[in-house]
Amino acid sequence: MKPVVAFQGELGAYSELAALEFFNREVTVLPRPSFAQVFDAVSSGEADRGVIPIENSLTGSIHDNYDLLLSRDLVITGEIKLRISHNLLAVSGADIGGLKRIYSHPQALSQCKDFLATLDGVEFVSVYDTAGAARRISETGRHDEAAIASEQAALDYGLSILRAGIESNRKNFTRFLVLSRELLEPAEDSKTSVVFATRNIPGAPFKSLSVFALRDIDLYKIESRPIPGSPWEYMFYLDFDGDIRHDVTRRAIAHLEEIASFLKVLGSYRKGGEYVGRIQERGE
Amino acid sequence: MKPVVAFQGELGAYSELAALEFFNREVTVLPRPSFAQVFDAVSSGEADRGVIPIENSLTGSIHDNYDLLLSRDLVITGEIKLRISHNLLAVSGADIGGLKRIYSHPQALSQCKDFLATLDGVEFVSVYDTAGAARRISETGRHDEAAIASEQAALDYGLSILRAGIESNRKNFTRFLVLSRELLEPAEDSKTSVVFATRNIPGAPFKSLSVFALRDIDLYKIESRPIPGSPWEYMFYLDFDGDIRHDVTRRAIAHLEEIASFLKVLGSYRKGGEYVGRIQERGE
Repeated sequence: MKPVVAFQGELGAYSELAALEFFNREVTVLPRPSFAQVFDAVSSGEADRGVIPIENSLTGSIHDNYDLLLSRDLVITGEIKLRISHNLLAVSGADIGGLKRIYSHPQALSQCKDFLATLDGVEFVSVYDTAGAARRISETGRHDEAAIASEQAALDYGLSILRAGIESNRKNFTRFLVLSRELLEPAEDSKTSVVFATRNIPGAPFKSLSVFALRDIDLYKIESRPIPGSPWEYMFYLDFDGDIRHDVTRRAIAHLEEIASFLKVLGSYRKGGEYVGRIQERGE
Repeated sequence: MKPVVAFQGELGAYSELAALEFFNREVTVLPRPSFAQVFDAVSSGEADRGVIPIENSLTGSIHDNYDLLLSRDLVITGEIKLRISHNLLAVSGADIGGLKRIYSHPQALSQCKDFLATLDGVEFVSVYDTAGAARRISETGRHDEAAIASEQAALDYGLSILRAGIESNRKNFTRFLVLSRELLEPAEDSKTSVVFATRNIPGAPFKSLSVFALRDIDLYKIESRPIPGSPWEYMFYLDFDGDIRHDVTRRAIAHLEEIASFLKVLGSYRKGGEYVGRIQERGE
């Protein structure tokens, strides 16, 4: 049986494209309205896996998901980097000059800001999902409204592409994480993600990074998030080379625990490659 | 003559409250629709200072402003931490049970999510400014709509407070920066902000922090932002103890330049205290 994979948004969302590419299309997708509900679906067993965006190469981290990785008890078991190409979608017969309103997710609006700055007298409306924006345009049938979404969403909701590739920078990738209830077998070329808070000692961030530098372990990402209720104190998220079941990684984490007041391993997983999402007709 | 201080939003915005507290009310405020236009107003000389939010203690950094600090040529000359208390505002006679829509800035909606989760069948609409949301409610006069904004906004737009202090966590502070065209005189108790990219050398983040650890210089904040066009590479923003015109700080920055492929000093300024915004009648 195909695994069930939950994602946030509607059919045609970039998260769905990431899920289809990661699992080579051998999945049943389960759309969910929020990131929290993606975590819920995997925790409850309704889904086998979840796929969530964690950072975009132009606009940065998706902090809601960093916070959920901390507060929920799922593990990261994979990642995939998807090339994001945005399109301006509208009903057949609409034209750019006649638009009054453009709907999309705030991150998509932000990634297309150079193109959007060329439009006069158009209102930009933030909605929770790019594919949902496309569905809305399809349902209302208005000629003065458009959505920014994927080519797949144009196909799924029967919309025309008024302008393709409107992202400000072609090197626009979103990195997605695959979530599971338990770690998978160690992979060859793997990375590990942890979140920790440091003790209140001098040079704590420096000492935390020394754990990795002293062992020649490469760092890929450092992210900080505020600790609610403790103004101006932060949780640090690190991605680094290796698998938690390897000796050197285990020793590095044991060393980090000496410096940390809190530490949680978020997962070890094969490093993901970069993909272009392929579109497909539904229902085959 | 009173200095002119630009801020993003409309009268009654939290940024205006921060500006009034920082300058002890001895200012003429200049509302601007966007953060970029706040930078523009100071660069052009239309305003003497700008006041921008840079991070909230619950929801984290305001990345648009980190990006603008990098791309524009203003310097940070002050900071202030403002206690943020959100209120549900509506026209007189409205009640919570009859609400269909609540307007506010996405950060304010996020900071009130526990209260908002108790409301059934209410739509939450993101707008660019809390005070603008309050003005809208006042103008439409609808009994089924409300805004989340400051007590000052309630006063300014003649709205009733349906519920005060609806933020999820009382330790809700926003840190604001004061922007100028040139550095001011060095202060007693000061911090310095820089942004830099590292060379592609092993352990670069660790070596960057060693610059400060080896000199016993306290770090206050580390923030990373993607470099557009260079996926999975990052700019680092650091706040640390000292003034750029002190010897030890200058040496630390010279040392950091040996590791960095790019470095920009964003400013040195007196560390800001925590304030509660006081409300006032206009026009006195």
